[in-house]
Amino acid sequence: MSGYETLTWDVDSDGVATLTLNRPDALNAFDLTMARELEQVFLTDARDDAVRAVVVTGAGRAFCAGMDLSAEGNVFGLDESVTPTPEDLRAHLTEPPYHDGIRDTGGRVTLAIHALPKPVIAAINGPAVGIGATMTLAMDLRLASTKARIGFVFGRLGVVPEACSSWFLPRIVGIQQALEWVYSADILTADQALAGRLLRSVHEPDYLVPAAQELARSFVVDRSPVALALAKQLLYRNGAAADPLEAHLSDSLAMFYTSIGDGVEGVAAFREKRAPRFAGRASDLPRIF
Amino acid sequence: MSGYETLTWDVDSDGVATLTLNRPDALNAFDLTMARELEQVFLTDARDDAVRAVVVTGAGRAFCAGMDLSAEGNVFGLDESVTPTPEDLRAHLTEPPYHDGIRDTGGRVTLAIHALPKPVIAAINGPAVGIGATMTLAMDLRLASTKARIGFVFGRLGVVPEACSSWFLPRIVGIQQALEWVYSADILTADQALAGRLLRSVHEPDYLVPAAQELARSFVVDRSPVALALAKQLLYRNGAAADPLEAHLSDSLAMFYTSIGDGVEGVAAFREKRAPRFAGRASDLPRIF
Amino acid sequence: MSGYETLTWDVDSDGVATLTLNRPDALNAFDLTMARELEQVFLTDARDDAVRAVVVTGAGRAFCAGMDLSAEGNVFGLDESVTPTPEDLRAHLTEPPYHDGIRDTGGRVTLAIHALPKPVIAAINGPAVGIGATMTLAMDLRLASTKARIGFVFGRLGVVPEACSSWFLPRIVGIQQALEWVYSADILTADQALAGRLLRSVHEPDYLVPAAQELARSFVVDRSPVALALAKQLLYRNGAAADPLEAHLSDSLAMFYTSIGDGVEGVAAFREKRAPRFAGRASDLPRIF
Repeated sequence: MSGYETLTWDVDSDGVATLTLNRPDALNAFDLTMARELEQVFLTDARDDAVRAVVVTGAGRAFCAGMDLSAEGNVFGLDESVTPTPEDLRAHLTEPPYHDGIRDTGGRVTLAIHALPKPVIAAINGPAVGIGATMTLAMDLRLASTKARIGFVFGRLGVVPEACSSWFLPRIVGIQQALEWVYSADILTADQALAGRLLRSVHEPDYLVPAAQELARSFVVDRSPVALALAKQLLYRNGAAADPLEAHLSDSLAMFYTSIGDGVEGVAAFREKRAPRFAGRASDLPRIF
Repeated sequence: MSGYETLTWDVDSDGVATLTLNRPDALNAFDLTMARELEQVFLTDARDDAVRAVVVTGAGRAFCAGMDLSAEGNVFGLDESVTPTPEDLRAHLTEPPYHDGIRDTGGRVTLAIHALPKPVIAAINGPAVGIGATMTLAMDLRLASTKARIGFVFGRLGVVPEACSSWFLPRIVGIQQALEWVYSADILTADQALAGRLLRSVHEPDYLVPAAQELARSFVVDRSPVALALAKQLLYRNGAAADPLEAHLSDSLAMFYTSIGDGVEGVAAFREKRAPRFAGRASDLPRIF
Repeated sequence: MSGYETLTWDVDSDGVATLTLNRPDALNAFDLTMARELEQVFLTDARDDAVRAVVVTGAGRAFCAGMDLSAEGNVFGLDESVTPTPEDLRAHLTEPPYHDGIRDTGGRVTLAIHALPKPVIAAINGPAVGIGATMTLAMDLRLASTKARIGFVFGRLGVVPEACSSWFLPRIVGIQQALEWVYSADILTADQALAGRLLRSVHEPDYLVPAAQELARSFVVDRSPVALALAKQLLYRNGAAADPLEAHLSDSLAMFYTSIGDGVEGVAAFREKRAPRFAGRASDLPRIF
């Protein structure tokens, strides 16, 4: 038992974890409890070396209907007594205690997802709106059911897209498409989201979660967790770096350490035409940045 | 009356402004007067809170045929008596008087477009060549008529793409497509530009400007100008930032200020199933960077 | 004669060079000799002003089958006696002698390709795997034969994608596609690579190299080598810069210098409706960054 109120967490024998947003009566709406639990599951359970990849989906007919606006009072958990500046917030981030009354809760979740050194796959089974949409952007790949409906609807409520979505969305779909979806604040069908390259693929509802799990399995079985983790870091960090020389510095180190680590077994297995048995662990990565 | 020689400027009752390049006998070729007027209209008229979005098109059969090479002498307005270095130019930018004889006039225009905290939509009605093409890259979305012809033709004249186009173009179409179009210096049809993802959509000529105006209207009616302005800043700035933590800092602040600002009305209207009445103004934005 | 063991190098009368990886019996597998020779050809032969563009292809049925794993001992040329840190590697890069035992050999090659101030086109004629795939990412455009097979297969060997591929790949195909191909480590068909936007176009085998050469020719005949070189620098550098103001600084200078350089002849030839005769040389570029 995971002990979570709003989530379920299951890990299969291949190390593929399935994380299910589990408030089906509320269409899995995101509240402060779910925020806290999502951050925790990615910072603790998912860090276990027995977990090799994570699939995220929703219980019932929705993925996540967005921020739970049915709560009383300040639904964002904000401390309205402060008047924060950019400098304040940066200072709060570098020295705890964090000023939780300013930091976007969605962003705390997506930063935890992003920092996980393992593949994370969204299986968007139904409506994914607001934070329900933006949380998937920090996942590496997005698969969806034909019943998925995705909306960056913040503009209709007079607020802005959050959860670091302005960092992820242009990198996934390009700046023109990102601007249109955020300006329009429309609900997209699965086909529209696929055409706009937000989604990797669209599936019949019954086949969505199995397809995501099978994809995750194909990434991790007989693979080095260290090589996967470093590859994820390299692609996100260097894909946003100013100069290819930065990539040369970090990928040289990553290649050096994997070549004298799991790469020894990988090359031996390749030469001997057998499956490799890697010993590396994602919890013990060399420092390459 | 706008008092412009080379432009017309009309704002409708929804706050959708239509800016028309208006030298039809010269195919709206870009000269130093048009450069000065374009910079001014984006820095002054378009900043008025009564303006919610801007559509840019051309009078007659062209959008903009590029730099007016029919002028006598130095068509770029350059001061050939200097030998500028990168350090010189950077110094000139930080302390006025600006060295106008070095700064690219097209870039002065596109920086003014980019800095406008409102949606800007290009309605490319015909040939858009050279600066006529690159000026549209700083606009958020590009719609075109079937008669549009778009060319990054600088290479044929022995000069380089300007107007900050090297910042915008790879973000819109990817680096491979950007390199090919700039190297080839060819004139693209509307269909080619659509396939290469430069254009958001292609329209029959008579429907182009109405479609652009309708799209602009859909972005702004019943929307918070503050939320729209901050969303535009977030997507461009964080889409080019090195780390998602930068997005977390700025979108936390943007969410904080909109949540206690127009977001209060937005959530109330949503709960009461009525149209919101937002009070925020794009001329009075919180500082989030 | 080029004097290379693993390469052939031919320059035609238009200045289009064809570089052929030439170890056909080993499927042009990449060994330390080929690494050294590739770096050298891009840093010396290709820098000659008589060379205007480079097409890269493979002899026989493969483009490049990847790192030659048939060699004895340490196939990556690593110095296993050290335990390098990011700071060590950065220091080694800024002050020679370079620590060749740490630096990725593939990255030395791709940095040399990237630094060439001329168009470089990959003509992928068959299998391109591992470094055979990643070396093409530093080329500006990728054309492929229907027989091409492309694989970022590093994960199967327990190592990471190298050769600065984590800088280039997300810029070419977007972060979602980049992550999937690296995680899956699958071999892609030409059609899959085209659909994922890695390739510019796919050709029948016999027409591939001629098509690449013809494209190269269309980029350089009657064009200014200076304008081409600066355009390449602008697109890569500003496409990765944080702010469009950086593009304004560098493209202003590039426009200034080309306007008083080859642009004078370019505009004159345009007005006189004749082919231009440019005098600028890629070996003598103004400093714009």
